[in-house]
This record gives sequence, C-alpha cells and structure tokens, in this order.
Amino acid sequence: MTKTPSRAIDLAVVGTVALDDVATPAGKADAVLGGSATYFSVAASLFARVGLVAVVGDDFPRPFRELLAARDIDLSGLETAHGRTFHWAGRYDGAMNAATTLKTDLNVLETFSPSLGEGHRQAPYVFLANTAPAIQLSVLSQLTKPRLVVADTMNLWIDVARDGLLEVLRRVDGLVVNDEEARSLSGARNLIAAGKRLLGMGPRFVIVKKGEHGAFLFGRDRSYALPSYPLEDVRDPTGAGDSFAGGLMGALAASGRFETADVARAMVYGTVTASYAVSTFSLDGLSKVSRSDVEGRAEDLRRFVTL
Amino acid sequence: MTKTPSRAIDLAVVGTVALDDVATPAGKADAVLGGSATYFSVAASLFARVGLVAVVGDDFPRPFRELLAARDIDLSGLETAHGRTFHWAGRYDGAMNAATTLKTDLNVLETFSPSLGEGHRQAPYVFLANTAPAIQLSVLSQLTKPRLVVADTMNLWIDVARDGLLEVLRRVDGLVVNDEEARSLSGARNLIAAGKRLLGMGPRFVIVKKGEHGAFLFGRDRSYALPSYPLEDVRDPTGAGDSFAGGLMGALAASGRFETADVARAMVYGTVTASYAVSTFSLDGLSKVSRSDVEGRAEDLRRFVTL
Repeated sequence: MTKTPSRAIDLAVVGTVALDDVATPAGKADAVLGGSATYFSVAASLFARVGLVAVVGDDFPRPFRELLAARDIDLSGLETAHGRTFHWAGRYDGAMNAATTLKTDLNVLETFSPSLGEGHRQAPYVFLANTAPAIQLSVLSQLTKPRLVVADTMNLWIDVARDGLLEVLRRVDGLVVNDEEARSLSGARNLIAAGKRLLGMGPRFVIVKKGEHGAFLFGRDRSYALPSYPLEDVRDPTGAGDSFAGGLMGALAASGRFETADVARAMVYGTVTASYAVSTFSLDGLSKVSRSDVEGRAEDLRRFVTL
Repeated sequence: MTKTPSRAIDLAVVGTVALDDVATPAGKADAVLGGSATYFSVAASLFARVGLVAVVGDDFPRPFRELLAARDIDLSGLETAHGRTFHWAGRYDGAMNAATTLKTDLNVLETFSPSLGEGHRQAPYVFLANTAPAIQLSVLSQLTKPRLVVADTMNLWIDVARDGLLEVLRRVDGLVVNDEEARSLSGARNLIAAGKRLLGMGPRFVIVKKGEHGAFLFGRDRSYALPSYPLEDVRDPTGAGDSFAGGLMGALAASGRFETADVARAMVYGTVTASYAVSTFSLDGLSKVSRSDVEGRAEDLRRFVTL
C-alpha cells in the first residue's frame, strides 16, 4: 500500500518509472530517467500537486528521486521493490516519428500491483498511464471520489487485453492515445472517424496525439485541432505523449473545469510541456522549466494558431 | 499566343490540364479530368475571374471543356495542340499520403511554351503551377503588372533544375510546396526550420502543405498553422494541393490584401476547396460546390481551430 502523503494530492498518476537507453539522430543517452509516470509527473507538477504511484528497484539512483522531489512531486506512492528498475532501450530514426524498441526489461514491474493508500484513493484527478488494463481497472475500483479520470494505453493491450481495455473505456472520463492506437482500437483508418468511434465507446472526450502534427480533441459537443509547438530542433521524442498528458491534466486540475472547451485550452499546456520534453534527452529540459516559461510558450502557441 | 479574354482576368494560372487514371482504396477512375491548372482554376473560380493557361491535345473531351466554362473560367489561354493530352496514372495506398506514379505521358506538354496575350500579361494575380522553372521564368518575364505572384514546384525540378528554381524563388511573392519538397529544397529535415530557410530564399511568404495534417505558413512577421478540414471519408487525394492553392489565391485576389494575416485567412478557403476535391474522384465534387457551401465549411473550420 502507498504511504500517506504529507499534503493532499490533487492529481494522482499510476504508471512507470524507468531507466531509458535512447539513441536519436541528435545523440544518445544511457540509463537516464524515463517512464510514463515520470514525464507525466514532472509536466503536471508545473500546475498541481502530483502524487506519483509506481515501482522502482533498489538500484534506482538517488539523484533521480531528488529530481522528482525537487518538483514537489509526492513520492509516498513510489514503492521500492527488491530487484532492478524497469529498463527500456529504444532508437528513433529519420524524422523521429516512431521509436524502435530494442529492449524491454520489466524487472520489478513484472509483479507490480498498486495498492493505493487513503491519500491517493481520494485524489480528485487521476491519470492511468499506459499499464495493463487489469491494473487500470484495479486502480479505478480503489478511487473514492474522482472528479476526472483519464487513461492512456498502447497497442500491446489493444491486441492482447481488448476486453479489459473496453471496460476501462466505459469507466473513464477521457482517453489520450496516439494516432496508431486510435486506428487500432477503433478499427477506422481515418483519424476523424477513429476519434468519433472511440468517443462512442464511453469517454466524454478523446484526444488523438499525432506527434509533430499536433493533436485532435473529440468531445460530445465539438471537436478541436491543435498543432504541435513549432520547434526547429527536436532531440529526443521520448516522453512527449506523457508530458502532453501531464500538462493537460495539470492544467485541468488547476482550472477545475472540464467542458470540451476547457480540455481544448488545457491541450495548449500539454503541447507546451511536450515541447520542452522533446528539446532535450530525458527530463533535462522539462525538469528545469518554470511556470512563466510555460506561459510564454503557451502564448506563442495561441498566436501560432490564431487567424 | 493566348487569345484575348472576353472580360478582364483577375487571376491567371499557368500549369497543366490532364487526363488522369487514378486508383485509391476507395475505387478507381480512368481518363478523368485532372491537371494542376484544372484543379486550381475550378477552386479559384469560386472567388475570382480565372484565366487558365495550358495546353491540351485534340483528343480533349468537349464535356471537360464545358465543365470549366460553366465555372466562368476564361479558356482563351487554353491552347489545343495537335496530338494527345497529357496523361497521368497514379495509385494511392493505405492512408493515401503519397501517390505512386504509374505513368506520365507528357504528349502535347512536351513542347508547351506559353506565350501570353495582353489580357493574361496584365493579370494582377498569377499562380505558376508546377512546371519547369524555365517555363515559370518565361511567364514571369511576360507579366506587366503583377500584384502577387505565387509558385509551386516539385521534387523533379529541385533535383534537375535547382538554379532555375532558385531564380524563380527570388522573383515571386509566395511559394506553396508540400512537406517533402520543402525538406528537399531547403535541406532541412525539420519542417519549421525548412519553412524558415525557404523564406530566406526570396518569397515574402512560404506555405508548406502537409496533406491530411494541414499546412504551415511562414511570413516575415509571423508563422501560422492550420489543420486540414476534418473529413471522415477521403476518396481521392489527387489535386488536393492545387485546389488548396486555387482557394488560397482566389480568396487573396478577392480580398486584395496580402499581409501574412491575410494569407492565413485565405488558407482557410484553400483548405476548404481542397476538402471538396478529395471527397470525390476528379472534379466531381469541387465543380459542383457553391460559394455558400464554401462559407459554411470555412465557418466549421474556424470553429475547429478556435479555443
């Protein structure tokens, strides 16, 4: 069970904390801090008090824990298990649109089954990062007063745990997936058709991320499109989607409003936090960003899309 | 030399009129009306009096000529040469992001060298569709009072006639290219960097089209991004880029203003005319559209991108 947080958590995230080996046309980095919950937490911490729920091994470097603590992220839900931390290795080529996975050592992740303490169960905002639908459902059943729950997933679960995933979709408020996942889960090749079908599967809103091409939002009352932040130099796309989700959920938790138009406005923040994530390897850029840096880029992005 | 138009031309386009064989996942069509100047003219005719400058063979079907005339497009610059009309065959697979060219029979196009009459030389707005840079330069030198000249090109000319193309870039106001052409012409893989480099090569504005992902505009004072119109069913992408350019230039000719913000607003119309072009094979959809249909979709599109 997760421990008691020192202060109330606004936004709980359940996902992975990883060590990553990454190679891109811009360079390489080994055993750097990564993982879905990590990128999410650092991005969301710009807007809200985040509680990170994940597991690491007893090899997890102290400086990485300190980086998270320095962002005022609550780590009482970060379990340390005997063994090695989840380790992912991947490579991006060319236009860096997709990662080639070279290695996935689950290690301590293999037996991870999060049992939330009272402080995490009561979190009003919850993000279920990409984990097995069974884990996502277990977390959902532990929540006592969620105001907004949003889930991510990946193609593996769409293929091997579709029924569980469909049950997740019926029980969450929002879904955030990338273009390939949207196609695969909906069965529609066209992304507009895919987004609308996913909306019919339960959530109140669906966001389809398209990497450098931005993101679509599908809501009951309207749809919305936002391009990615205009960067001339992308160094490492790892964590872009989780940083997007973190900025999005952080901004939603801070505003307390989540009509479709509010989600659209929060996408600006998700897009900005993702832009910082991809400008450097690992969390090097995103972890140093201030709220006023983010507001500056948010204003740039709004100008970029305003007629 | 082109003949004298019956009424003053607002917008002249020099390019191709073709017969197309097209196969897509949605179906196939043989010997249908196509060509860059054709799609451009039909789209632009919604906004302005268009003069089409191109060549066809003596096999060019009368109904195709009538379709163009019915849009009030001036055809005094449409030369009929002895021989067969330019014939292109192509196929689109999967997400239809790129055409595979199966056949390019230049036919009468091989010896085409446009000599403009007075009515076409005096056109205030001119679009140089994709032709050899030598032809584009020849047309440029014949213009007597252009207010706004915009050019397109293709990878072939970037590879085999780069110097001529660079001269074109120094002499036009605007450039409209797709993402691959932008990368190839600029040498930058990142599209934001590519657009900015192209802007440094002469034009006052550069538009980079990204197909289903919309388009970027780069101007001296600002940049702008617009997604494509949210269609659930794309049947044939042929002519999308030329229809975009036609709607864009038609709207610019109608407004008479071309600051970067005006170009951005005109992109909405280009995006809408392209959306009609891709909804059907050939000009079947676009040629039946009314100005009020276009205004309706333009309003939809503005809502789609408004926070």
